[in-house]
Amino acid sequence: MKSNFTYFMPTEIVFGPGKLKELTKLSLPGKKALIVIGSNNSMKRHGYLDRVIGYLKENNVESVVYDKILPNPIATHVAEGAKIAKENNCDFVIGLGGGSTIDSSKAIAIMARNPGDYWDYVSDGTGKGMEIKNRPLPIVAIPTTAGTGTESDPWAVITNTETNEKIGFGYRYTFPTLSIVDPELMLSIPPEFTAYQGMDAFFHAVEGYIAEVNQPASDVHALQSVSLITEYLPKAVADGNNIEARTAMAWASTSAGIVESLSSCVSHHSMEHAVSAYHPDIPHGAGLIMLSVSYFSFMASKAPDRFIDLARAMGEDIIGNTKEEQAQCFITALKKLIKNIGMEDLKLSNFNVKEDEIEKLSKNAMEAMSSLFKVDPYKLSLEEVKSIYRACF
Amino acid sequence: MKSNFTYFMPTEIVFGPGKLKELTKLSLPGKKALIVIGSNNSMKRHGYLDRVIGYLKENNVESVVYDKILPNPIATHVAEGAKIAKENNCDFVIGLGGGSTIDSSKAIAIMARNPGDYWDYVSDGTGKGMEIKNRPLPIVAIPTTAGTGTESDPWAVITNTETNEKIGFGYRYTFPTLSIVDPELMLSIPPEFTAYQGMDAFFHAVEGYIAEVNQPASDVHALQSVSLITEYLPKAVADGNNIEARTAMAWASTSAGIVESLSSCVSHHSMEHAVSAYHPDIPHGAGLIMLSVSYFSFMASKAPDRFIDLARAMGEDIIGNTKEEQAQCFITALKKLIKNIGMEDLKLSNFNVKEDEIEKLSKNAMEAMSSLFKVDPYKLSLEEVKSIYRACF
Repeated sequence: MKSNFTYFMPTEIVFGPGKLKELTKLSLPGKKALIVIGSNNSMKRHGYLDRVIGYLKENNVESVVYDKILPNPIATHVAEGAKIAKENNCDFVIGLGGGSTIDSSKAIAIMARNPGDYWDYVSDGTGKGMEIKNRPLPIVAIPTTAGTGTESDPWAVITNTETNEKIGFGYRYTFPTLSIVDPELMLSIPPEFTAYQGMDAFFHAVEGYIAEVNQPASDVHALQSVSLITEYLPKAVADGNNIEARTAMAWASTSAGIVESLSSCVSHHSMEHAVSAYHPDIPHGAGLIMLSVSYFSFMASKAPDRFIDLARAMGEDIIGNTKEEQAQCFITALKKLIKNIGMEDLKLSNFNVKEDEIEKLSKNAMEAMSSLFKVDPYKLSLEEVKSIYRACF
Repeated sequence: MKSNFTYFMPTEIVFGPGKLKELTKLSLPGKKALIVIGSNNSMKRHGYLDRVIGYLKENNVESVVYDKILPNPIATHVAEGAKIAKENNCDFVIGLGGGSTIDSSKAIAIMARNPGDYWDYVSDGTGKGMEIKNRPLPIVAIPTTAGTGTESDPWAVITNTETNEKIGFGYRYTFPTLSIVDPELMLSIPPEFTAYQGMDAFFHAVEGYIAEVNQPASDVHALQSVSLITEYLPKAVADGNNIEARTAMAWASTSAGIVESLSSCVSHHSMEHAVSAYHPDIPHGAGLIMLSVSYFSFMASKAPDRFIDLARAMGEDIIGNTKEEQAQCFITALKKLIKNIGMEDLKLSNFNVKEDEIEKLSKNAMEAMSSLFKVDPYKLSLEEVKSIYRACF
């Protein structure tokens, strides 16, 4: 057992189908909310925004809406959202939607209380890593997708369009104070995105399990999450109205968020961020799937130990005489899962990523999100990163 | 999977051998601590108190010591400790020692900021269940035993000597802000108490797993804790200097505390509290061990489902054709564990508990800690409670 670690995940999570309505009576961290939503109109179309505004009113909480967030959210909108929060004297922020809006709400919460640019505080890549002097506004997360885990972690992934950096950043005060995880809000996600998002959660769990900074609590959450996703993601993709599958996936995602809080993602995530920083049309989960077989086959050959547990959690029979052979059972299980969600034909080349970008992507991954490479169970060289990318074409 | 629940465990836990020294540089929640310790001198004898005072000084934090806490802590000392905290303008409380001192520090933290008697706020038995108007002082827990889980739960178990009630009480603001769990501080616990305390943790995990209010996160912590204790408690009892075993037990206890926070104990704990309320010389863990085979044999016969997982987590082969038969494998494993820690001869009669107390104990259990009976997987009648006690003689 790992014998030295820090455990901290202070978010209160109200979980269950129909729980959105609890907004009418939950103790909230302020009296005037900035509600942050995406630019694609889906929160309005599904009626979620009106419900949230109405429930807040019943709870005597006013609100202002900021609706510009892009699927790969950008620093410019963080600044704009923070300005609106300040102008309207909002005393807390609600992120309603997918990871992009909730992540943006965290970054806005920082910038609504602190001077300068968001990139002044980001602690990786070209970020200046300055100290955040004032405590951010309290954050309430209401996810409508099952994937990012942002409802139970402090991370905000924001893209700097000037430098083509897509960086995850956060600290002890960007954990949501409260997250309402209502699987009913996820029934409307189409199969393709259900698959992408579910696999994002899957990789959070897998990566947190193999990361050097794993700890006993992240281990149990990771194995449970991997097991739930292997069973329920294919069901949620096959039938979006299966509330049991949506509920299991909602918890698997939240649980994998706890893994990200206690342990860490590894360089698989850095390598995907490089891809979607240059190709913002690629959904993050799709990018992860496309890199995964190449990435984990290599990683499992170099650091096999923990992949055997993961394969077992996925229900795979462990065969092989050596650890290296046994670890490859995880790859077998991963390929099956990707096939079970209909994503076996996904390729970088389908998304117009060219092989001559490999050099650029590799350098970007290792610079913009260098920190994740440091917790890999095996430390990758630039040449190895390139060869992992190369095998994805 | 359970589909409706609330997850909340905000304590930051700094875990690992030697971590006490982090007190010199950790961000603490105040500038003047009331350090609460037991009356038995062990914190002074082992030098732990001096180390804590010294480390706090290095961190520019003053301290005052309150050293009256009994092994079964009483409400009178809560009032006295709170008075001293107020007189000395302490702005946070440190509980250093076993469950009794940390639990007392939580109750003192409430009473240092609120008027009246502690029993005005207690929400079970003859407690008045009044609202706690002012937020308690922040609490830092430094456990020197592996058992109570108080470092990762909000509960304080305090005895009212006037009414012979031993009641667990707490709420969202009695979670420690910070807990430092340093297994090195546990090396000095003698084998007998190592066994009692370790079994307390074991039952927190088992009870939280079978309680109706279980949730996915408490489940994984519970199974991990049960598995660690089955393996490491006999080792820690056999060789108190085995730091690996002490470390595993320290995490098993903290992890079982998380189970108590997310799920709940069941009436096994109520029944033990009745015993040690009338017989304060009986260590809580000893009481639990003495009741356990009778209690769980009956409970497993009525609500077998979850006992099968517990038996499996203990490494027991699952045999039997029906669920009821399979559930009894847990009892087999429990008896083995009790034998492996040398406690197979423990009997209520050895501690001067008489069979003619059964009526009184049963009523006390069902009145003073009625709330736990409500989350039992099978609801016990008074006659059933009596017959469970009777089988322990």
